[in-house]
Amino acid sequence: MLNSVCLFATVAENKGEIVVFGNEIADDATPKVLERMMQAEASPISVIKFKKGTYHFYPDKGLEVFCYISNHDDVMVRTAFPIFNFSNLTIDGQGSTFIFHGRMVPFLVDNSKNISIKNVSVDWAMPFHSEGVVVARDEKNKTFDLQISDDYPYEIRNNQIVFVKEYYEHTLGQTILYDPERKAIAFDTESYTNISNGKKSAVQNNIDKIKYKYKIDPRSKTQKVLGIQKTLKVEQLKPGLVRFTGHKKKMPPIGMVLTSKGDQSINRLAPAFRVTHTAGFNAINVNVHHAGGMGLIAENSSDLILDGFNITASNGRMVSTSADATHFVGCRGKVELKNCVFKNQLDDATNVHGTYQEVVDVIDDYTLGVRMGHAQQQGFQIGVKNDNIGLVRLSESFFSYGRLTIKSIKKINGRYQKITFNEKLPAKVAPGDLIENLDGYPDLLVENCTISSNRARGLLISNPKNTIIRNNFFHTEMEAILIPVESGHWFESGNAANVVITGNTFQDCQHSGFNRGVIRFVTDDDNENIAFKNIEISKNTFNHFDNLILEVANTDGLKVLGNTITNSGTFPMLHPKNPAIKIKTSKNIQFKNNNYKGKATTILEKDKTITNVKFK
Amino acid sequence: MLNSVCLFATVAENKGEIVVFGNEIADDATPKVLERMMQAEASPISVIKFKKGTYHFYPDKGLEVFCYISNHDDVMVRTAFPIFNFSNLTIDGQGSTFIFHGRMVPFLVDNSKNISIKNVSVDWAMPFHSEGVVVARDEKNKTFDLQISDDYPYEIRNNQIVFVKEYYEHTLGQTILYDPERKAIAFDTESYTNISNGKKSAVQNNIDKIKYKYKIDPRSKTQKVLGIQKTLKVEQLKPGLVRFTGHKKKMPPIGMVLTSKGDQSINRLAPAFRVTHTAGFNAINVNVHHAGGMGLIAENSSDLILDGFNITASNGRMVSTSADATHFVGCRGKVELKNCVFKNQLDDATNVHGTYQEVVDVIDDYTLGVRMGHAQQQGFQIGVKNDNIGLVRLSESFFSYGRLTIKSIKKINGRYQKITFNEKLPAKVAPGDLIENLDGYPDLLVENCTISSNRARGLLISNPKNTIIRNNFFHTEMEAILIPVESGHWFESGNAANVVITGNTFQDCQHSGFNRGVIRFVTDDDNENIAFKNIEISKNTFNHFDNLILEVANTDGLKVLGNTITNSGTFPMLHPKNPAIKIKTSKNIQFKNNNYKGKATTILEKDKTITNVKFK
Repeated sequence: MLNSVCLFATVAENKGEIVVFGNEIADDATPKVLERMMQAEASPISVIKFKKGTYHFYPDKGLEVFCYISNHDDVMVRTAFPIFNFSNLTIDGQGSTFIFHGRMVPFLVDNSKNISIKNVSVDWAMPFHSEGVVVARDEKNKTFDLQISDDYPYEIRNNQIVFVKEYYEHTLGQTILYDPERKAIAFDTESYTNISNGKKSAVQNNIDKIKYKYKIDPRSKTQKVLGIQKTLKVEQLKPGLVRFTGHKKKMPPIGMVLTSKGDQSINRLAPAFRVTHTAGFNAINVNVHHAGGMGLIAENSSDLILDGFNITASNGRMVSTSADATHFVGCRGKVELKNCVFKNQLDDATNVHGTYQEVVDVIDDYTLGVRMGHAQQQGFQIGVKNDNIGLVRLSESFFSYGRLTIKSIKKINGRYQKITFNEKLPAKVAPGDLIENLDGYPDLLVENCTISSNRARGLLISNPKNTIIRNNFFHTEMEAILIPVESGHWFESGNAANVVITGNTFQDCQHSGFNRGVIRFVTDDDNENIAFKNIEISKNTFNHFDNLILEVANTDGLKVLGNTITNSGTFPMLHPKNPAIKIKTSKNIQFKNNNYKGKATTILEKDKTITNVKFK
Repeated sequence: MLNSVCLFATVAENKGEIVVFGNEIADDATPKVLERMMQAEASPISVIKFKKGTYHFYPDKGLEVFCYISNHDDVMVRTAFPIFNFSNLTIDGQGSTFIFHGRMVPFLVDNSKNISIKNVSVDWAMPFHSEGVVVARDEKNKTFDLQISDDYPYEIRNNQIVFVKEYYEHTLGQTILYDPERKAIAFDTESYTNISNGKKSAVQNNIDKIKYKYKIDPRSKTQKVLGIQKTLKVEQLKPGLVRFTGHKKKMPPIGMVLTSKGDQSINRLAPAFRVTHTAGFNAINVNVHHAGGMGLIAENSSDLILDGFNITASNGRMVSTSADATHFVGCRGKVELKNCVFKNQLDDATNVHGTYQEVVDVIDDYTLGVRMGHAQQQGFQIGVKNDNIGLVRLSESFFSYGRLTIKSIKKINGRYQKITFNEKLPAKVAPGDLIENLDGYPDLLVENCTISSNRARGLLISNPKNTIIRNNFFHTEMEAILIPVESGHWFESGNAANVVITGNTFQDCQHSGFNRGVIRFVTDDDNENIAFKNIEISKNTFNHFDNLILEVANTDGLKVLGNTITNSGTFPMLHPKNPAIKIKTSKNIQFKNNNYKGKATTILEKDKTITNVKFK
């Protein structure tokens, strides 16, 4: 049956049609691809193949969907691939490149099973960020000049630079320096960036008289702007050459590339892959060269395998995706990242966590009203029917004091949901408590990956199930691996247990200026409660320009075995007085067969809770 | 059956429960009202009564719905009254006042039948606009000073004033002067307002190199800001006293109230009533004191009766609703406005029209791809199955050249839909043609209404069916009645026929400075084609400070009978050289028994198309 919508089509042998698209749709593939996708319920598809080529996707005729996207802005987006309620679908680019234009989410996967996307490269015609080269600096007059290429059209409105794209624009906003020689975040960038451009100095009259009945989020869009004035002055010296006056940190070094992605909370609007409520998702041999947000954000899904899922910058750009390479919220089953390259993205290589939601109403014996603490968690559904929900009071313990199972969830609005449980609520439950989904964590494997040249962390993991981090290469500007418990800002839930970090190479991480270790276990809450259990750090190589490679707190059960620690000499040491290792508020710590060849005077620094522990 | 959600409930005698809410929920009525509304499918409601009182509605626990709203912005709104799929529901406030907080739509009615809302007043705790009194002016230095009361908290950020509300803020944006003595738009306000604050003067680099594959809307949010810089300087002299420098028109007079509602295209977000796809809607004895948008916007609905639906300002404010009092798009059956007061709103008392949608793709023999021309028509569905759709080429005629009936509509995105027809498309159809719904117009009655003190027109009507405008009082700053055909800006469809304007009083309309008539029939398209047919203007009283009371063009069949025209002397004449009446490109014109006591030297001015017509 030849379908009128696809240009080449044959009947699949088993469950659905094999649809083949060719060059005829390359100018704007959106209308034809979308039309066929929207007919899939009546006329099932098993495979969509693209003849190898370059396909453009414009938003003008794309399907519009309002999406709450975790750790992104909530946006009306357009897509050509609404993979909603599909089973057993493979999309095979056969080596093609898909070029997107404007505010689109290339792959929007929801409520589906066994979806595979392979052999495709994703890029944008105009990226959601901008870049310029520092060509002059004047420390005395607090100015620096940026040469901006024709790839980044801009305007200067009332002394502020605005970068203009197809269907989009962004202000200077969040900035960081890249070193074009290393094609990586510049050494010591924290001395220079963010470029300062906001000060709480606006004249206010009666603002303090506006009273809110309920808790408001000081980081929400309406609150965060209050009282803030722009302090930077931007002027064009000649076309493409722009002077910035009034930056408060050190002027950035000549030759560095300043990258800019606009204001936080409006600059994460177009991830490349968005997967929700899906069981079985595979991305194989996929290159994501850019996204206005993350490479992949998965929520409430299970069994996600990324094999050869590579985030790399294209077209001479310093930046690949403008946020994390990958990010998993409330995912379960297996989450595997294998043989991937995560380079030059403007946030972590991966972040795995659940959500804390705050109890605000005890509505009846079975029902809680809960509030989403962070604006970028709006609309997030904490789980599905019969999931185990933990009641948490972090001041008492990082582990739940009670357990309930979900009967139903009613989403009232982005911030507020009502959750009814199968069991009666315990008497102890009170507004201010948090809930987390105890089932919404995965067996996580990160193996044979290269994580490099990006802003922020390598792996940010809050996972009480099982985590294996094996045979990877790290070169990150912040922590290579951060294992936190935090509740007050991002509301990203999860303590950690059963973490194996083995066989990895840590090359000059944490080089942007922070006084922090390469690997850190840390909680926001200043107490001695145990948050992390059964940790192994073994057979890794730390080739570090600085001293501090490991920070541990609130941990019960840590083995540090057979690691080699050397000083690379790559960069000047930033914090030479540091020890190599700091441990506090922990127990059952073991060091064995480690080989220290670094420069720290003190190898192991520990607090009074740690006894009988020696670095070996 | 006493339902746990409402506080007082009895079983209704017939179809559903009579729910009674009382003072217990007054602090925030949203959660309880919403909970009961959301249970209505399982447990039907016939009447919701409120014991007389003042009820607050907060958005924090309101239902969140994304709405495309015609002639408004497309917004995520919250509501306590999601009247979705209801039949035969009455909401009776019994004299109560509902005070809303922030970004809410008080009544959101969709896909319902026979809905009545009565005996209630709607207001907002903090309005979506702001006001200040002009207390000083300096024509030489181009400054004026505004005294801003505690009711309007503000900030000054980088020389720009921002008015801050609960959950909302707005810039100066659209402004107009009110005369506090008349509590109406100031005489000759066009000499003073808008306050100038934007100039196409930004430095641009390579903006012209951004190419779009498809047509873009220069008035869309991403396009309209390009190149624009703020030119006004705002500074606080002391708390509550603010100086504006750089206004280009005349400095506003001392004692006048300057009202501000922020930038167009982001300031219409919270109409008081929004009715879509509903058959039978009654609003009786309802007072709307404010809305961040219109008092009522109805789309694709039928048989709407507003009786004693009053738009009036409260709390000493000059402004009631920040946009039209009422507005009807694609409505059919009866639309009746009876015994209403429409005062102090910042746009028309009513606007009745359809939409033109532009043909952009001829997809197959039966299917057109159409584009929404105006940003505030995004997502508008032009009709329902079997509706008669006219194909229009305005360069040739204001009437359709072909007629088709709808088989189905697929909404792809806000701007783009695919419409499949029951009949084959005519060969003539081509991109650039427009479509309109020939069935989507009403029998319109506006009777015994007071339309006064508002910005813009009284009645703006594009209705080829039947219109009766009888026994109303008008005192408007622009046209009392405007009958247009326009296609290039608002894409509001409809020529006009069978219009009776009788027994009305027009008191000093068009007083803000425009050189236009009190009643106007006008087309955008500069040709001699007939647009308007069978018009009667009879037994009205024009008590006008200026000369021009009637402008007619492109009309076939006009009777002007028994009207009385006097000069009121209320204001100085603005355009004393004008005739009383201008007629062009028209035929079959008749004057009889009119009584002219005005000051025009020429009563009737006509072009060469008009022969044998005399004012009598």
